[in-house]
Amino acid sequence: MKLAFQGEPGAYGHEAARRLARAFRLSPDLNSHDVGVVPCRTFREVLERVASSAPRRERGEEGVIGLVPVENSLTGSLHEVYDLLLEFAERVRLQIVGEVEQPIEHKLLGLPGASLDAIERVYSHPQALWQCRRFLDELGVETQAFYDTAGAARWVAQQRHKGWAAIAGPLAAELYGLVVLREGISDYPHNATRFWAVARPNRASQRPLGGAEKPDDAPGPWRWKWKTSLVLELPHVPGALYRALKIFAEHGVNLTKLESRPVRTEPWRYRFYLDFEGSLHGPSARAALQKLSEYAQRLRVLGSYPVCEGPP
Amino acid sequence: MKLAFQGEPGAYGHEAARRLARAFRLSPDLNSHDVGVVPCRTFREVLERVASSAPRRERGEEGVIGLVPVENSLTGSLHEVYDLLLEFAERVRLQIVGEVEQPIEHKLLGLPGASLDAIERVYSHPQALWQCRRFLDELGVETQAFYDTAGAARWVAQQRHKGWAAIAGPLAAELYGLVVLREGISDYPHNATRFWAVARPNRASQRPLGGAEKPDDAPGPWRWKWKTSLVLELPHVPGALYRALKIFAEHGVNLTKLESRPVRTEPWRYRFYLDFEGSLHGPSARAALQKLSEYAQRLRVLGSYPVCEGPP
Repeated sequence: MKLAFQGEPGAYGHEAARRLARAFRLSPDLNSHDVGVVPCRTFREVLERVASSAPRRERGEEGVIGLVPVENSLTGSLHEVYDLLLEFAERVRLQIVGEVEQPIEHKLLGLPGASLDAIERVYSHPQALWQCRRFLDELGVETQAFYDTAGAARWVAQQRHKGWAAIAGPLAAELYGLVVLREGISDYPHNATRFWAVARPNRASQRPLGGAEKPDDAPGPWRWKWKTSLVLELPHVPGALYRALKIFAEHGVNLTKLESRPVRTEPWRYRFYLDFEGSLHGPSARAALQKLSEYAQRLRVLGSYPVCEGPP
Repeated sequence: MKLAFQGEPGAYGHEAARRLARAFRLSPDLNSHDVGVVPCRTFREVLERVASSAPRRERGEEGVIGLVPVENSLTGSLHEVYDLLLEFAERVRLQIVGEVEQPIEHKLLGLPGASLDAIERVYSHPQALWQCRRFLDELGVETQAFYDTAGAARWVAQQRHKGWAAIAGPLAAELYGLVVLREGISDYPHNATRFWAVARPNRASQRPLGGAEKPDDAPGPWRWKWKTSLVLELPHVPGALYRALKIFAEHGVNLTKLESRPVRTEPWRYRFYLDFEGSLHGPSARAALQKLSEYAQRLRVLGSYPVCEGPP
C-alpha cells in the first residue's frame, strides 16, 4: 500500500496521508510510519500515479491511493482538483473512497538554538504567509514566498542560517530536524483542509476504505459519517437547479455542499458539484438519484465514502 | 470621468474599460479614447481608487468607476474579486452599476518585420499560455510566464528581439506598436470575461450607468438585459439553500448564477453569491427579496444594473 500526495515530504498532504492511514487502519502499526508515501509535484501527478497503479497490482504488487485537497475552511474549494477528478473519473473511473479532515497548524520553525527575537527572514507558501500576516507584521520580518511549506522548512534546515525560519506543519519540523519557535501563529483559529482519498475501481479499495459498509462499523475513536459526491449538468432552462434541489429535498436527502464550475465548451453554462449526507446505497438516496438521472443531462457519482472527522 | 482597471495599459481590463465607455456612452466620443484610465497593480487597488474618489467629486472633480473581472467563461469565477466586493460593499457601500462582456481574443504579437517561423520564445500570463497550449506546442517555442499579458507585449516591444513574441489582446498591439503574427490561437473558441463596473453610492452613477432605468432605454446597437447580484447567508439547517431557491422560483425570479464561498470565521459554513435576471425594483423581485430577508441570516444586494452583451 502506497499513499501519493502533492508536495515535499512533511507537507500537509503528507500529514493527511498519515492521518488517513491511522483512521482507516491501512497499516497494522497505528502510527503508520511504515505506510509508503509517494510525494508528487502536482495534483495531476498524484492522480496519474493512482491511475497507473492498477496493472501493477494485478501483477501482485501494492496499489496506490491518492490524497488530494478538495477544500480549505478559509480559502474555499480547489477548483483545479474538482476539474481533475471529473477528468480522471471519466477516463479511468477513479473513485473517491474516503475523506479526512486535516487541521492546518502553522508553526514558526527554526534551527535548533535559534531564538525568535533574532529571526530576520521567514520562508513559506504564499497562502501560509497570508494566513499568518498579523504575526509576521508584529515580528517585523522579511518574508519570502516558497512553492511549498515543507520545501521551505527543508531549505531553512539545509541553509543552516539561524536568522532564517519557515512556516510549516509539525511533520516538517520532525522530518527536517527543526524546532518550533512559536505555535498558534495563524490569524484564523479554525484552519483545516479536507482531503479526498482516491483509488481505481478495480482495486480491493473500490469498497470504501477499511471495508466498513456503514459508519457504525468504522473503527473508533474517530468521528465518522457517510457522504456521497456527484457531478450534475442540468437542462439550460430557468429553475433547473431549483428542480434538482427539490428532488433531494422531497426524498429527505441533505445536501452539504454545492459548487458551480463553467462548462468550457459552452460559454456561461455550469456544471454543479454536490455532496450529500449518507451512502449512495440508502433507499432514499437511490430513489433521489434515479429521479435526478431522468432530469439531468449528465450525472456522475464521484464516490460514496466514509468521512473521518478526527478524534472526538 | 476616470475608469480604473487592474493591469498594464493594453490589458483586457483596459479593453473592457473602453467597451464600457462606448456601451454606456460615458464619453461624447464613442471611441472613448478620451475617457481617462487608471491602470492599477491589484484588484484591491482598483476598489480603493473607487472608494476614495467620492470626496474629490464633491469638490467638483471627476469620479472614478472601477472595472473588475468577475468571471471567465473557461476558468470560472474570480473568488478573490467576490470576497473584495463584499468587503467594499460593507465598508463603503460600493455598488455594481453595470456589466460588460469582454471577448478575450488572444493574438501572437511580434515586432514589425518579425516572421512567425523565426519566433523562438513567447511571453504571456500563465493563463493565456495555458489557453494557447496547442498552438504553442505546434510552434515548438519556449514559453516564459509574465505577470500580465499587456506587460509581456510591452516587454517584447522594448527588447526589440525579433525572435521574441507575446500573447496579448489587440489593444496591447496598438499601444506598443506590435504586429499580429497569428490570431485565433486559443484552444477554446469561446473565451470571454465578464467585468463589473463599480462605483460609490453617493455619485450620480448610483443610478445605473447611462441613466437608463430599463433595458429598453439603453443605447443601441448593443444587446441589453437587467441583472441583480446579492450575497446570502442562510440558517445552518438541512434544506436551507433549497428553501431559499424555492422563494425565487415561487416568485418567478430566474437565477442565472450561484457560487458558494466559505465563511472564514466559521469552518465549513458557506455564503452564497447569486445573480438573478431583472431589476431589484420589479414587483416580483421585491416580493422575493422581502420574503428572503425574513429567512436569511444576512442578505446584501451588491447591485442591480444593466448588462451589455455586446453588439449583435
